[in-house]
Amino acid sequence: MYRILKKENKARLGEMTTPHGTIHTPVFMNVGTQGAIKGALSASDLETIGCQVELSNTYHLHLRPGDRLIREMGGLHRFMTWNRPILTDSGGFQIFSLAGLRKISEEGVAFNSHIDGRHIFMGPEESMQIQSNLGSDIAMAFDECVKIPSPREYVEKSAERTFRWLKRCASSLKEYNARDEAPNPGQVLFGINQGAVFRDIRIDHMKKIADLELPGYAIGGLAVGETHQEMYDTIEAVEEYMPDDKPRYLMGVGTPGNILEGVARGVDFFDCVMPARNGRHGHLFTWNGIINIKNEKYSSDPGPIDPLCFCPVCRRYSRSYVRHLFKAEEMLAMRFSVMHNLYFYNDLMLHIRQNLEQGTYESFRKRFTSQLDTRI
Amino acid sequence: MYRILKKENKARLGEMTTPHGTIHTPVFMNVGTQGAIKGALSASDLETIGCQVELSNTYHLHLRPGDRLIREMGGLHRFMTWNRPILTDSGGFQIFSLAGLRKISEEGVAFNSHIDGRHIFMGPEESMQIQSNLGSDIAMAFDECVKIPSPREYVEKSAERTFRWLKRCASSLKEYNARDEAPNPGQVLFGINQGAVFRDIRIDHMKKIADLELPGYAIGGLAVGETHQEMYDTIEAVEEYMPDDKPRYLMGVGTPGNILEGVARGVDFFDCVMPARNGRHGHLFTWNGIINIKNEKYSSDPGPIDPLCFCPVCRRYSRSYVRHLFKAEEMLAMRFSVMHNLYFYNDLMLHIRQNLEQGTYESFRKRFTSQLDTRI
Repeated sequence: MYRILKKENKARLGEMTTPHGTIHTPVFMNVGTQGAIKGALSASDLETIGCQVELSNTYHLHLRPGDRLIREMGGLHRFMTWNRPILTDSGGFQIFSLAGLRKISEEGVAFNSHIDGRHIFMGPEESMQIQSNLGSDIAMAFDECVKIPSPREYVEKSAERTFRWLKRCASSLKEYNARDEAPNPGQVLFGINQGAVFRDIRIDHMKKIADLELPGYAIGGLAVGETHQEMYDTIEAVEEYMPDDKPRYLMGVGTPGNILEGVARGVDFFDCVMPARNGRHGHLFTWNGIINIKNEKYSSDPGPIDPLCFCPVCRRYSRSYVRHLFKAEEMLAMRFSVMHNLYFYNDLMLHIRQNLEQGTYESFRKRFTSQLDTRI
Repeated sequence: MYRILKKENKARLGEMTTPHGTIHTPVFMNVGTQGAIKGALSASDLETIGCQVELSNTYHLHLRPGDRLIREMGGLHRFMTWNRPILTDSGGFQIFSLAGLRKISEEGVAFNSHIDGRHIFMGPEESMQIQSNLGSDIAMAFDECVKIPSPREYVEKSAERTFRWLKRCASSLKEYNARDEAPNPGQVLFGINQGAVFRDIRIDHMKKIADLELPGYAIGGLAVGETHQEMYDTIEAVEEYMPDDKPRYLMGVGTPGNILEGVARGVDFFDCVMPARNGRHGHLFTWNGIINIKNEKYSSDPGPIDPLCFCPVCRRYSRSYVRHLFKAEEMLAMRFSVMHNLYFYNDLMLHIRQNLEQGTYESFRKRFTSQLDTRI
């Protein structure tokens, strides 16, 4: 289901097959929280910008329009007309970051909807039921994403509970996949490593979840306030305990530089809302660094956002026009910027794969790691 | 430059040639106020939905990004990458509806920008200069759009002044077209008939402007609060004094029913923000009438917005999904709705032209005039 095609040091070129096609890794997943990409991008736009995997949020879709409705409509692929791979998160991250008045027990988490305050309970079984209804290709385990910093004792207890939850997720998804009404019975589960930035807790947890022989493993609970170095150290600490023959996913990461460093440390999957969010504020990625398109100096610039980019925006529109759209507060400004930034990320991943193929990844990483993250 | 291909009673099938291609009439112009269509539609989307003429606003573009900048960038066609016909209004309508503290004199209008309060003066010459800088194919005369109702005496004086302004517009545009820096020296001027709902003032004014033998004539100052019947009566009153061999434009109109009635009364050009604005609120046109996509009954409706529509949204997405996008407040909801509604309008015009071609317009009008305007 996942195989490595080539390695350069720890970096891996690979592919993962899913019920909706093959994912070429390393890959960046494009985030469509509520079954749509922020910035008015459609499923058709995602095809245009070279998206391989769309990522949707269990918590949001459970609240609205409801996962049962989506199952009725044939699953999330049919609902949003995206016929390529989809990954759904477990809902855990949003429960701990968005919802109100949480109460955690061994069973799961009781919380209030951030939309209407409605009381909801979600544990491993509920999360698997919802993700089964959505019919994503990759379901994520239900976990607790602890704050950084958190007391060691709490992190340890939480990691143990998250491990017990993971076992419940695995057996629960198996049951749901066996049911007739499952829109995507080939759905697989990725386990999630937790442990904040405590090296020994992370390693111990990683060893235990690796023993479950799941189809893939994620490093969760990062990109929540720790330094980049702490993040890289944590990846390095757990990486050697992650099964070599399973895909590895660094959740919620990150900048182009973070991704280049993550790939160098053996990571295959990434996702982040940042390119879309920054795009909506006019911060655009280029192969020379990050530009702020609202800057006065672009007012009569006839060139494209990035002369090295071949996205639908760069192929047709000028910096001058895109800047005007921002100043005039036209919705089209957001669409163009999100489209460009996501294309840039997908293109970056393509270059990463090409360099891995050619055995030139290390020099590619050195050349671009800081350059791409620099504001120019 | 304009020729009638076929007539059915007063309704005309025609074509107008412009420096950026032929316009097949009757036509609905798609409104891109600030050089972009509200709802994140791009120039590429306009091509997809069959837009023939894009309409931009002189007042808005003068304020932001400035018509001189647009001329520097090669004119509005190049700036927004729209290579088909563009019509610009004169700025008059916005000055009288948006701007603050207006003072009208024989020379023109002094007013304050609605964006930053900046003092601006615009008269016939300034409007022509701006429209010349923008380089549209059709420039509209600078006029005063009086409120309905207004005292007869005021309307009469205003119509006389608007006539004097029109003569200044004609000679001014001629001068601008002769200049080397004009981005579109083939730009033509349409005169605008005013006179509120005073039949005799309208007719007198129409006769006088017809004598100027301009390339086209508009009926302005309607769709500003009068009844539909008053609007139809006004069209009928002036129509016989409009040159038969020139295109006729009913400004700011209207619903599908209004357009069908306008065509029946000899009108060739229409424009209205309504399909885009209503779309953004979830009111969607179909061949069976207007639906509110936010309605609960569409929550699990797998069908397209309109089974008779072949727009990019109807070809791919369900009512259920579009409704979800609205409820989830996704920007994509607006984009889909505006795209559908504008496609619907462009498609309606295509059907109008086909029926005129086949000599079946009268029965087409009878069948659809009330149906298309009815909420279902």
